[in-house]
Amino acid sequence: MILTVTLNAALDITHRVARLRPHASNRVSDVSQRAGGKGVNVARVLRALGERTAVTGLAGGPTGAAVRADLAAASIADHLVPIDGESRRTVAVVDDRDTTILLEPGPPVTSAEWARFTRRYRELLGGARAVVLSGSLPPGVPADAYGVLVALARAAGVPALLDADGEALLAALAEGPDVVKPNIHELAAVTGGEDPAVGAAALTAAGARAVVVSLGPDGLLAHTPDGVWRARPPAPVAGNPTGAGDAAVAALALGLTAGHAWPERLVEAVALSAAAVAAPLAGDFDPAVRRALLGTVTVNSVPPSTI
Amino acid sequence: MILTVTLNAALDITHRVARLRPHASNRVSDVSQRAGGKGVNVARVLRALGERTAVTGLAGGPTGAAVRADLAAASIADHLVPIDGESRRTVAVVDDRDTTILLEPGPPVTSAEWARFTRRYRELLGGARAVVLSGSLPPGVPADAYGVLVALARAAGVPALLDADGEALLAALAEGPDVVKPNIHELAAVTGGEDPAVGAAALTAAGARAVVVSLGPDGLLAHTPDGVWRARPPAPVAGNPTGAGDAAVAALALGLTAGHAWPERLVEAVALSAAAVAAPLAGDFDPAVRRALLGTVTVNSVPPSTI
Repeated sequence: MILTVTLNAALDITHRVARLRPHASNRVSDVSQRAGGKGVNVARVLRALGERTAVTGLAGGPTGAAVRADLAAASIADHLVPIDGESRRTVAVVDDRDTTILLEPGPPVTSAEWARFTRRYRELLGGARAVVLSGSLPPGVPADAYGVLVALARAAGVPALLDADGEALLAALAEGPDVVKPNIHELAAVTGGEDPAVGAAALTAAGARAVVVSLGPDGLLAHTPDGVWRARPPAPVAGNPTGAGDAAVAALALGLTAGHAWPERLVEAVALSAAAVAAPLAGDFDPAVRRALLGTVTVNSVPPSTI
Repeated sequence: MILTVTLNAALDITHRVARLRPHASNRVSDVSQRAGGKGVNVARVLRALGERTAVTGLAGGPTGAAVRADLAAASIADHLVPIDGESRRTVAVVDDRDTTILLEPGPPVTSAEWARFTRRYRELLGGARAVVLSGSLPPGVPADAYGVLVALARAAGVPALLDADGEALLAALAEGPDVVKPNIHELAAVTGGEDPAVGAAALTAAGARAVVVSLGPDGLLAHTPDGVWRARPPAPVAGNPTGAGDAAVAALALGLTAGHAWPERLVEAVALSAAAVAAPLAGDFDPAVRRALLGTVTVNSVPPSTI
């Protein structure tokens, strides 16, 4: 089983409107909603690929109940730990031009709830072949939460993949996460530099065992113990980029547990990520696009002198 | 007890953002939510005035559960009839300029659910001194729903106040609602004319016993069996006009059950409506503004020749 952790699980609501009129009343023609948060998206992708997966994290209130009901409907094993606060919503307002997103901050988490979560997490690690730690931290969770969770995973002999940004990412590096996957903007924000190769090397120096930087439509850059690689799709794919990073993380977790070589992992990650762009909802991917891309993604070793 | 009916009960969510950026990601700094829908707002105002009140209508799903939890927290008697569909949300995005509103359409209602509601409604009429029918109809509810509910109220000897627009309003007029309260835009939309006096006379001719037109900051125009009146506040009140109409309806229901003369009802309706504008949330009003206005609202009889 691959365990995914979503500390700030969300109910992702999509509102369709003809054209969003700011500072006016907008009638929503169609509403859809489902369980979200990056770790939930990763679990959806893994499940669609036939991998056994389980979701944990924190959820509470009527919105948390809606998240759990949707996980049950999607047959995703739900080990979310209940909290008193109400889980956050995200609202994506889709009009004929583009999408406007509203992100609630998330519920307050008490220290007792955090302690209850870490106990449950340690139990779940017993059955996990890898753990994926993804997304923002809700208020009240310690700033070094991901450091603690990486350390507990490593102590249990379970490899840990981390998809976080800012302080939450930085505070976990010293514990030696097996893979961190910032996108190029997140990497620049934490390293202060524009060159992703330099930034990836800096995160490695700070403790990450491997760093995979998502470059949007340009593919991935991987800084690993076995070498440095650039993986590129043959052409950009049109669609919704939300969830593309989660699909890449799912592929990296699968490749890690299967013991695949890095170039193979990167081909799958680029193909699955592009296939996620081709699907309208985060957590979904287009299997035909994935299959078509698997044979056409290029991976090039980057010589050390050019880094 | 005054019964209020909210067939399309809602969870009203308020998101604060610094400045809404369309077609971008917006971090919400503060979230609040409460039970909404026009009939719920009317019940809140009545309860704050010390009137016994009960809420009925339709609610379902986790959003319906959140609506009910909030009614319980506000000590408002909840007789909402459960449905399988999920109640709608409204999202008000408040920034430093103004408010952007997203209105979900509401859940599908089956004919069995509608039949169950009408049975419950008839039971509740037994204890009601007046019934207030407010707001939009969810999908699946018959187009003449308000006609049926007005007829059932009149058959039970309970006066009915109706705050609806479009077809829902027109389809109820022949049943003789005691008061209908369109705003000036809703009146123009159903009568096709710009002059509110002419429009109010047309609704009376179609069966409404009294028509009270809300004119926004200009007050009210009332076309009643006892005469025609214009009621005006001394000056416009700054604030949030959402819920001002509901406060006016609450005042009209109170005046009707108390047997007050029309001019007295209109003074209270204008004062309470302006006091609702002064309060940030729909369903609330500022008691100090109400008290200050009660003595300063002017009511003038409109001679028939000028109509």
